[in-house]
Amino acid sequence: MPTYTAPTKDMAFVLHDVLDVENEKIPGYEELTPDFTSAVLEEAGKITGEVIAPLNVVGDKEGCKLENGVVRTPTGFKAAFDQFREGGWTGIASDADYGGQGMPYILGMTVSEMVSSANQAFGMYSGLTNGAYAAIHAHGTDEQKQTYLPKMVSCEWTGTMNLTESHCGTDLGLMRTKADPQDDGSYKITGQKIFISSGEHDMSDNIIHLVLAKIAGGPEGIKGVSLFIVPKFMVNEDGSLGDRNGVAVGSIEEKMGIHGNSTCVMNYDGATGYLLGTEHRGMRAMFTMMNHARLGVAMQGLSQAEAAYQNAVIYAKDRLQGRAVTGAENPDGPADPLIVHPDVRRSLMDQKSFVEGARAFVYWGAMMIDKAEETGDKDADGLISLLTPVLKGFLTDKGYDMTVQAQQIYGGHGYIEEWGMSQFTRDARIAMIYEGANGVQALDLVGRKLAQDGGKHVMAFFDMVKTFISENKEDEAIADFITPLKQASKDLQTAGMFFMQEGMKNPNAALSGSSDFMHLFGHVCMGLMWARMAKAATSALDAGTDDPDFYKNKLVTGRYYMQRQLPATGMHLARIQSGAENVMGLDAEAF
Amino acid sequence: MPTYTAPTKDMAFVLHDVLDVENEKIPGYEELTPDFTSAVLEEAGKITGEVIAPLNVVGDKEGCKLENGVVRTPTGFKAAFDQFREGGWTGIASDADYGGQGMPYILGMTVSEMVSSANQAFGMYSGLTNGAYAAIHAHGTDEQKQTYLPKMVSCEWTGTMNLTESHCGTDLGLMRTKADPQDDGSYKITGQKIFISSGEHDMSDNIIHLVLAKIAGGPEGIKGVSLFIVPKFMVNEDGSLGDRNGVAVGSIEEKMGIHGNSTCVMNYDGATGYLLGTEHRGMRAMFTMMNHARLGVAMQGLSQAEAAYQNAVIYAKDRLQGRAVTGAENPDGPADPLIVHPDVRRSLMDQKSFVEGARAFVYWGAMMIDKAEETGDKDADGLISLLTPVLKGFLTDKGYDMTVQAQQIYGGHGYIEEWGMSQFTRDARIAMIYEGANGVQALDLVGRKLAQDGGKHVMAFFDMVKTFISENKEDEAIADFITPLKQASKDLQTAGMFFMQEGMKNPNAALSGSSDFMHLFGHVCMGLMWARMAKAATSALDAGTDDPDFYKNKLVTGRYYMQRQLPATGMHLARIQSGAENVMGLDAEAF
Repeated sequence: MPTYTAPTKDMAFVLHDVLDVENEKIPGYEELTPDFTSAVLEEAGKITGEVIAPLNVVGDKEGCKLENGVVRTPTGFKAAFDQFREGGWTGIASDADYGGQGMPYILGMTVSEMVSSANQAFGMYSGLTNGAYAAIHAHGTDEQKQTYLPKMVSCEWTGTMNLTESHCGTDLGLMRTKADPQDDGSYKITGQKIFISSGEHDMSDNIIHLVLAKIAGGPEGIKGVSLFIVPKFMVNEDGSLGDRNGVAVGSIEEKMGIHGNSTCVMNYDGATGYLLGTEHRGMRAMFTMMNHARLGVAMQGLSQAEAAYQNAVIYAKDRLQGRAVTGAENPDGPADPLIVHPDVRRSLMDQKSFVEGARAFVYWGAMMIDKAEETGDKDADGLISLLTPVLKGFLTDKGYDMTVQAQQIYGGHGYIEEWGMSQFTRDARIAMIYEGANGVQALDLVGRKLAQDGGKHVMAFFDMVKTFISENKEDEAIADFITPLKQASKDLQTAGMFFMQEGMKNPNAALSGSSDFMHLFGHVCMGLMWARMAKAATSALDAGTDDPDFYKNKLVTGRYYMQRQLPATGMHLARIQSGAENVMGLDAEAF
Repeated sequence: MPTYTAPTKDMAFVLHDVLDVENEKIPGYEELTPDFTSAVLEEAGKITGEVIAPLNVVGDKEGCKLENGVVRTPTGFKAAFDQFREGGWTGIASDADYGGQGMPYILGMTVSEMVSSANQAFGMYSGLTNGAYAAIHAHGTDEQKQTYLPKMVSCEWTGTMNLTESHCGTDLGLMRTKADPQDDGSYKITGQKIFISSGEHDMSDNIIHLVLAKIAGGPEGIKGVSLFIVPKFMVNEDGSLGDRNGVAVGSIEEKMGIHGNSTCVMNYDGATGYLLGTEHRGMRAMFTMMNHARLGVAMQGLSQAEAAYQNAVIYAKDRLQGRAVTGAENPDGPADPLIVHPDVRRSLMDQKSFVEGARAFVYWGAMMIDKAEETGDKDADGLISLLTPVLKGFLTDKGYDMTVQAQQIYGGHGYIEEWGMSQFTRDARIAMIYEGANGVQALDLVGRKLAQDGGKHVMAFFDMVKTFISENKEDEAIADFITPLKQASKDLQTAGMFFMQEGMKNPNAALSGSSDFMHLFGHVCMGLMWARMAKAATSALDAGTDDPDFYKNKLVTGRYYMQRQLPATGMHLARIQSGAENVMGLDAEAF
């Protein structure tokens, strides 16, 4: 059965060596000393590795069961969830005013990564609750906040997000769920929602559904959509639970993966709902949380790649098969371990260099969100808004590929469920789809984010890369990072120019290259992160660290990324420059 | 539920327009007139589309059940199998002397593709039987052939291949299964084999296991391995079935996919076996079938991509979501179909251009095998031997990617098992693993095939490409195929040179690039196939075909491949040229 050991040292490296969080001028970051974060990381590593990870396979095998309207989660889930919330982990980055620990979002992200690596389906129960918490925190009335937030911070009550209907996912303007205003200011919600993660289950006393619906008589399409709070059990004035509301689970979806999370069809039959935020501005309320939510999914791409990689390494060191081409390395044994074979190494290095680069990218993104939210920095906000689709789309596409590679290391055993490697790919697959399918991320990037605020944010990104390059161009120790980063960044700029020139004439010329652009952009970001990590590693080595191997290995791993992954930018650029005709040339009937 | 419609027109295009099979001087090919092949393709299309495809989801959901030593296949499998074999489909390319139809292998391949697209798990029952048939046909005594082949051609008896043991897959020299010689010339086989496809089931009267085992006292390692025929039921002299042999299913593996095929742990407990071929030469006997078997798996990569693509197209035309960026195309409907969106097109074109190119590549490979076997052409044999790892490794890697893309078109529905798209990816996944994992294919290519016969075959491949280019360099109509093919081929040559120069000094420098080389090679082969298809299409257009749209669409699809897939060769070359240090630089403990 797969295991998980939190990579606390790699996490601390990003927080302290690379991002130097303690010295960032962001409120709350002054507490993030190496001593403090290491205490948090170690404790989180324990509960995720020892309590939550062993339930991963259990969750996959048992799944969630619906009987007589009650959903039973897999054996052990509730007990582990109780332990997790009682330890204060679910509210680590939540507002202290509502019982949270009040830590920065970036620290919450480290814990989220661990939970998700240990057990993605499990992590979604608190993850979705955090999302619903954030929506109420941002848009709720004081009364709503007092009523719901403390219980949601502690996960005594969990949350859900209800957007999709069977006939519409991306295009939510088509939705049919209705909200009828009542005399007391509440609404009656009627309709059916699908794909509702954690929609119904036995892990919490109440479930707070956030539901998008159209108020009768409102504007057509997406502009007539409002957001509602619909509790499973009505909440009495004293905070105790009252009657059951008119919302019920219709069925549990049979999914490819994340079986441990109950993905439900939810039926709203005149359920009592309370407007959250302004009427007809439901999508706007959702959008304010979108950077968080999408960064969280980007992290899931990383998290499954990390967990799968760890287990691929264990197998590659353990399984004896064949001999090293340069001479036996385990001459007394019947064969050498898999890890001696160059192509096995190539695959492990693909995974390792991705995971470590992606972690830096995600944590950096979390820091931008903290900066934007805690200091009101508009530039940080613009930058993370630009890069959110890149983080989500690129890291989940690649994260999935990495789980496939990890599974491949196991040969035939990778295909047998007993070994647990298939689960990582099946679970990772969803991250490419939910929270905006990756094609939609690419469209958001090229069709919206590039030109946002007059292209200011993409210029800021290039400035950031350029500044790093010019500040370090004399540093021989990282020259083999700077040169490929420069080339990749140039490819990205060329692609951007192509979009500007051709996209004016024909928007299809830009959109035909949107997925390639997202990947090109992702590689440049990863290249920048690796260059920054290389800088941090050489600095530590120069300063005379007492763990030189750790830093030297970072340089080797980073060079792998620069030399073997970054050349993909040229391919993406060539595809983009080939234009729209090869994509749009056929009539629909010719497919 | 997914459907499957055999792409008979595309298949005929490859057979007749591209390969011009009728005029190839290969015995049996003179019968492959367009009239004849179209009759076969239409009939095969009917039974696979109407009878076998509807059982695909059934097989996935029900799987195979082991109860009291008996394996029950999914509902409907046996009846469909009876219909399939009674139609003579299982023996279409088998020797007429044993009741087969005696058709060329290439025609059998078209039918195999259909069966596999319709239902990969189902197709494996006859597919493995064909493999076992071929081994006995090539290496059996006359008596063995008379005893087993007629029943195996008709699939009244099915076959299996028993190689893997729990501690060894790739490195079969480690195997422990023993064969003890008996006085009557037979052997007692004892040991356990795992991952045995179609190992035990209720679809046939008898199962003929081909089992690798070591004869006591033979040479160590792989040189002491022999191949044995071990029937489930002993066969009496008159051909009737006798006692049950000492072989039994231990368990059925729980797999990620191909649930409709019973993958078994097989226990041999002093089972009676008969030597097939020469003692200690079992691997050699297996190797003679390897080109067939691996080309069959390459075809599976294509087959799942084709089936998934067909269903992605149906959904993309049907599902209304969003509006075309250039203006509504379905103004009277609530939204436009997905297929208007450039990134959806991009994905469909990826799939379409892969599937059609891969089909040409696989059928061309089958023709090479026919040529080698029927005319003794050593060059054809060398060429297919060289390209077998490319066909298997590249087409199954890419075929899997395409099923993932097809699934992605469905958004959230792609993740729900009810829609059937997840099954294509789960089924396609195995093709990257079995019949030699793709990393082993890459090793075979770079470590063995490149230098085989003094590098003669790779030179012949380059000559073939060069000849095509020089013969067509004046043809303006396909200039946009010739130019990228030339560039890609140059990248491949440069990579080959790098291996020659660096590989001498350090074999790891070559092997670190083996997977990239396999993919680079695959793209060049696909580029050549598309260039040949483009030539055939322009010829048909010049000749005044009555279906010009079909041929024009081939050109658009081919251009997509040349412009958007072939640029990958530069990336693979850059990775290869980066050498071994970034792959081998870390100590094993650093992973």
